[in-house]
Amino acid sequence: MALANIGVIGLAVMGRNLVLNLADKGFRVAVYNRTWGRTEAFLAGEASGREIAGARTLEKFVASLEAPRVILLMVKAGKPVDAVIDQLLPLLSPGDIIVDGGNSHYPDTERRYHALKEQGLRFLGMGISGGEEGARHGPSLMPGGDPEAWPLVREMFQAIAAKADGEPCCQWVGEGGAGHYVKMVHNGIEYGDMQLIAEAWQLMRTALDVDNDFLADVFARWNEGVLDSYLIEITSHILRVKDADGSWRVDHILDSAGQKGTGKWTAIDALEQGIPLTLIDAAVNARFLSALKSERERAASRLAGAASNEAPLDETFVDQVRDALYASKIISYAQGFMLMREASVKFGWDLQFGDIALLWREGCIIRSRFLKDIKAAFDKQPALENLLFDDFFAEAVSAAQSGWRAAVMAGVSRGISLPAFSTALSFYDGYRSATLPANLIQAQRDYFGAHTYRRTDRDPEEVFHSHWAEDQHEEKWQ
Amino acid sequence: MALANIGVIGLAVMGRNLVLNLADKGFRVAVYNRTWGRTEAFLAGEASGREIAGARTLEKFVASLEAPRVILLMVKAGKPVDAVIDQLLPLLSPGDIIVDGGNSHYPDTERRYHALKEQGLRFLGMGISGGEEGARHGPSLMPGGDPEAWPLVREMFQAIAAKADGEPCCQWVGEGGAGHYVKMVHNGIEYGDMQLIAEAWQLMRTALDVDNDFLADVFARWNEGVLDSYLIEITSHILRVKDADGSWRVDHILDSAGQKGTGKWTAIDALEQGIPLTLIDAAVNARFLSALKSERERAASRLAGAASNEAPLDETFVDQVRDALYASKIISYAQGFMLMREASVKFGWDLQFGDIALLWREGCIIRSRFLKDIKAAFDKQPALENLLFDDFFAEAVSAAQSGWRAAVMAGVSRGISLPAFSTALSFYDGYRSATLPANLIQAQRDYFGAHTYRRTDRDPEEVFHSHWAEDQHEEKWQ
Repeated sequence: MALANIGVIGLAVMGRNLVLNLADKGFRVAVYNRTWGRTEAFLAGEASGREIAGARTLEKFVASLEAPRVILLMVKAGKPVDAVIDQLLPLLSPGDIIVDGGNSHYPDTERRYHALKEQGLRFLGMGISGGEEGARHGPSLMPGGDPEAWPLVREMFQAIAAKADGEPCCQWVGEGGAGHYVKMVHNGIEYGDMQLIAEAWQLMRTALDVDNDFLADVFARWNEGVLDSYLIEITSHILRVKDADGSWRVDHILDSAGQKGTGKWTAIDALEQGIPLTLIDAAVNARFLSALKSERERAASRLAGAASNEAPLDETFVDQVRDALYASKIISYAQGFMLMREASVKFGWDLQFGDIALLWREGCIIRSRFLKDIKAAFDKQPALENLLFDDFFAEAVSAAQSGWRAAVMAGVSRGISLPAFSTALSFYDGYRSATLPANLIQAQRDYFGAHTYRRTDRDPEEVFHSHWAEDQHEEKWQ
Repeated sequence: MALANIGVIGLAVMGRNLVLNLADKGFRVAVYNRTWGRTEAFLAGEASGREIAGARTLEKFVASLEAPRVILLMVKAGKPVDAVIDQLLPLLSPGDIIVDGGNSHYPDTERRYHALKEQGLRFLGMGISGGEEGARHGPSLMPGGDPEAWPLVREMFQAIAAKADGEPCCQWVGEGGAGHYVKMVHNGIEYGDMQLIAEAWQLMRTALDVDNDFLADVFARWNEGVLDSYLIEITSHILRVKDADGSWRVDHILDSAGQKGTGKWTAIDALEQGIPLTLIDAAVNARFLSALKSERERAASRLAGAASNEAPLDETFVDQVRDALYASKIISYAQGFMLMREASVKFGWDLQFGDIALLWREGCIIRSRFLKDIKAAFDKQPALENLLFDDFFAEAVSAAQSGWRAAVMAGVSRGISLPAFSTALSFYDGYRSATLPANLIQAQRDYFGAHTYRRTDRDPEEVFHSHWAEDQHEEKWQ
């Protein structure tokens, strides 16, 4: 084989499928894996008959790449990425490009970008979503890092990416850790989307007298409308699956949700940046609570539930739940874009929000029709302050809010936990409140700690302190 | 003056008041401040005629202390603490004790404890709450760090601390950063308590046809019952204060709440430890949202509110709001103790939860009758798994839940944002759910990422994966 166009290190499931995808699109690929056995099996199996060459050593692997070399790392995030980079360093030449396609935390990507730049190398951190299927036939790719490297790899990565209305779901995100940052937010949003679906299911199966077949039909129907998305679609598939004895499989699955930590990263990042990312936060906390299975079982026999013995609701309730899910989803994405707007300013990334919506349109877990509407909103107004200020979404949430409120009230009165639906509604009602009770909090802080306050009827620069506990007089501090 | 019993570095408001408090209790105090002018003014003013000696240099200050020296740092948290420690190091002798009384982040305290231990010095990180008044007449003190140092300073700190039923609100917390950790959680709980009061006020002033005088009376009355606490008390004072023109001062205060970051630390720490600390989290996010004043004003004119034109509620609603506040507060403290239980195991601190409740009973911002009930619960069962499993609190929350649900529903139907009330209720209903919809989330994760799941009807060690999208057969993975 001639020198390869790209080298891929790491032949776990994602790496292997990306290699096959690259080969499908006509690129020559060199592969390397820490253990030769896995490389050998891959070359003899899926890779056979294609322009895919394996190397036993990193030296031979690097020597098999055309210049400037493009090396895609598909190894476990964290220390393994640093270890492979350290091994590669002595073998590379100035101008070579390393692309980290793992789920790296963006501060690590920032650090690696700067460290490799000093060594004359170009580093890209590229978020990849879509799982095994996506990697094989068209993932969503979120590349960031060294802007000079991007034109040299664009053709290759756009070729293997998913397409949405003919455009590749692979667009430049921004410098440094921007690509992995956007991937992190994607994963947080994925947690939120999944929690919203779980709450919709829980609410309907508890408040209506229906079974999973009925609910599978509901999700299938929702998948024809504004909620059309991969996660709604697979939910309807899941709810139909039965065990040999005819019982629904989902009902036997242990209700303790695992996580790999990227949703948590997003929630922590939002707190650090001061953005109320309340829906993703609720989704992460719901997973924590789900993990306390035995404690919950003890609590169930100990703590009283809602007093009412309410009759099952009729099927019009299904539409209210759909409205609650849709409106809550709008809030979740609005919050996610608020966070990215803040990060873009803080890190100087100049994120293009319409492009980000396009990246997520196809190929990834949160792919949906919804993201087309978000892209349209940012195409119309690239500087849109908040998704909720776009006409389409402002009207959508207004139309949905009555059903949304009804669904949340049904949960409250029946004792059904709806952390994401309700936090979304609290956010909506708070966001559209010109006046919140934070003035009382400021008064309390001034009372016990002389933290001062400002007044709405005075110059906003002026700062006041009251002697609340004494003669109550107010003094100007600045 | 004879050699001093203790030296205090830093004569800002907290430092000065602690010095006076120590002198009141018969201790000889040496003081040092970076600028001599402040020391001079203090000695000539409040400190005159007392056994308080000032030093112009750190050398003289250190030389004026009896051995082993006890030095209390009351300087700004962060780098200033490290800077002062660095300056002190060459002047101290093995066995001397440095106490950091600032609002340090507990990982810094851990680091300093270990670093100073290597140098033969004893380090304590002591959380102090109660503001200026507390420092002067009896603060809540939360000492942690070097267990060998504690017996040497106990008498002094217990003497100046607040007392609750005759016991000092100053008990050993634990090794390393435990004292500052517990102070951090205290501050997070303070954020929660304040947000709950703000929501109660907002809900009543919006849903009832009443004014702040009426509401001041409500809070004063609540302060006679289970909600008896410093923050409820000052709220009733604040709501009575009027400007010269007869309008309520609180209504003129800008509704953007500030923060110094310790609530945020608590929320981030809980996410890192995997504990659903949802109420404090909601309180921190409510402050973030409050800061977006101008964005909220634009949103208010853009986004539709609740459709209903509901009539004002009658005054029985006040009791429902009280129930909501009380039940939500129980949830907040239950979550706070869940977090401390996790930290205690993780860091090997062996926290005594009854003692912690005692520390907070008096002297600090969250002081309340409520903490007496919490202390009683842990005295009865030191290994209590969760506050909600204590008879008193299980019954309290059961009795309150009907009013709690009514209050949340009133907010939902009227478009009043109640993030803390509703997240508390979501948590309660989730916590007492033996079955949550996290099984669907696990099924989704297995569908798109082969993340596997466990089954409730099989050995809990067994792990399964289904081929959902293909023939749906299930295979055992372990």
